[in-house]
Amino acid sequence: MTYCVGMMLDKGLVMMSDTRTNSGVDNISVYRKMFTWKVPGERIISVMTAGNLATTQNVIGQLEERTKAPEDRDNSLLKASTMFQVASEIGRLLRATVQETQDGNGARGKGRFTASIILAGQIDGMEPRLFLIYPEGNFIEASFDTPFLQIGETKYGRPIILRGYDRNMNFEDAVKLLMVSFDSTLKANLSVGLPLDLMVIERDQFEPAHERRITQDDPYFQAISSSWGDALRSAFHSLPDYKFDHE
Amino acid sequence: MTYCVGMMLDKGLVMMSDTRTNSGVDNISVYRKMFTWKVPGERIISVMTAGNLATTQNVIGQLEERTKAPEDRDNSLLKASTMFQVASEIGRLLRATVQETQDGNGARGKGRFTASIILAGQIDGMEPRLFLIYPEGNFIEASFDTPFLQIGETKYGRPIILRGYDRNMNFEDAVKLLMVSFDSTLKANLSVGLPLDLMVIERDQFEPAHERRITQDDPYFQAISSSWGDALRSAFHSLPDYKFDHE
Repeated sequence: MTYCVGMMLDKGLVMMSDTRTNSGVDNISVYRKMFTWKVPGERIISVMTAGNLATTQNVIGQLEERTKAPEDRDNSLLKASTMFQVASEIGRLLRATVQETQDGNGARGKGRFTASIILAGQIDGMEPRLFLIYPEGNFIEASFDTPFLQIGETKYGRPIILRGYDRNMNFEDAVKLLMVSFDSTLKANLSVGLPLDLMVIERDQFEPAHERRITQDDPYFQAISSSWGDALRSAFHSLPDYKFDHE
Repeated sequence: MTYCVGMMLDKGLVMMSDTRTNSGVDNISVYRKMFTWKVPGERIISVMTAGNLATTQNVIGQLEERTKAPEDRDNSLLKASTMFQVASEIGRLLRATVQETQDGNGARGKGRFTASIILAGQIDGMEPRLFLIYPEGNFIEASFDTPFLQIGETKYGRPIILRGYDRNMNFEDAVKLLMVSFDSTLKANLSVGLPLDLMVIERDQFEPAHERRITQDDPYFQAISSSWGDALRSAFHSLPDYKFDHE
């Protein structure tokens, strides 16, 4: 499985993804699921992927035109005129890749090759935008009514984001919130694993404001992980106690 | 969907279930999913059900021998000599019911009629025991290594139980913990809904130590639900702040 979150703030976009892939519990690897392309001063586009690894790597490969010699490559995302066009193009490639693999594999392959993608970015002169692209190639866009999108193992880490999110929060708090959400997911589900990739896209900067890989020995993540347990327990004890009526 | 949790403590067993059933979002009803039978002073047996409602109601009906006239009924669970026997009997009925419905419905029915059951109880002279019974009729038993079992929409409410559980906790704290876990699930997923049913089985009592239905206007649940949001936010703010390195 996978866990990726894209979050929309007034100040910009924050993305975090894990890196664990597995084909059975006896075949676990680390693969990057976050990919970023940019034209300095003009656009920044970042995607996170969940689902079948062959499918998602194929889509990324096609976006980067890796079938061609390096000097002939031409990433169409860098020329699309809107983020909506970028989402459509990725959706088209994703759908075609899923379909093509499935066609050769009949009913046995049904659903096995699907993937989902979160797309975030901004092109100069337009707003920062955040999309979730489905394996069928269609997509939805986040808004401040539904300001964060998740793919993969989404449920464990959702309650804390629902409770902690605020569109005015600064990037540092948003990163902290995502770390807590990822920590809850990591604790509950082996199929999501460290290291994590983090990317902050500040409005109108067209450069990552912050980009990092958070590894097992990251002191901040370790501090969050150990103090969140204690903080949750104190929060729990601060709640009013339940009383039996001794009926 | 559904959310049910059975929890094993040194003092006994605590069970909580929601009551929402749905067949599409336009067909939502309230049904009890917790059923209890007892022989005062000798045994108490309680089950919670998740999955296809026709299947689970059928299993409960068969356990209570509702095909017979009331005076001829004879609940075999009240005569089984161990909780393991009780689990086997429920598993056998569950498997047969799922199989029978599926057989007439071909591939289209595949998986549609399945259900899972949590079984908790104690028979005099033996330990309180907690089981999870699968639609295939097999089952697992909880132990203090894995002291709680969930069925239905299990993921949203799992992190807080992992963090808050302690086998020495008293029943009141366990109920509080379950309320928080249910509140997180209710907030995140429409397919789980109030009212909730609660049952506390104290070791060697063979009578519910506490049994209640928690409705929408329950003041304690309302207090938990509103103060948990605040408590979580303070817990979150008590964590060390993330700092960008301004690389």
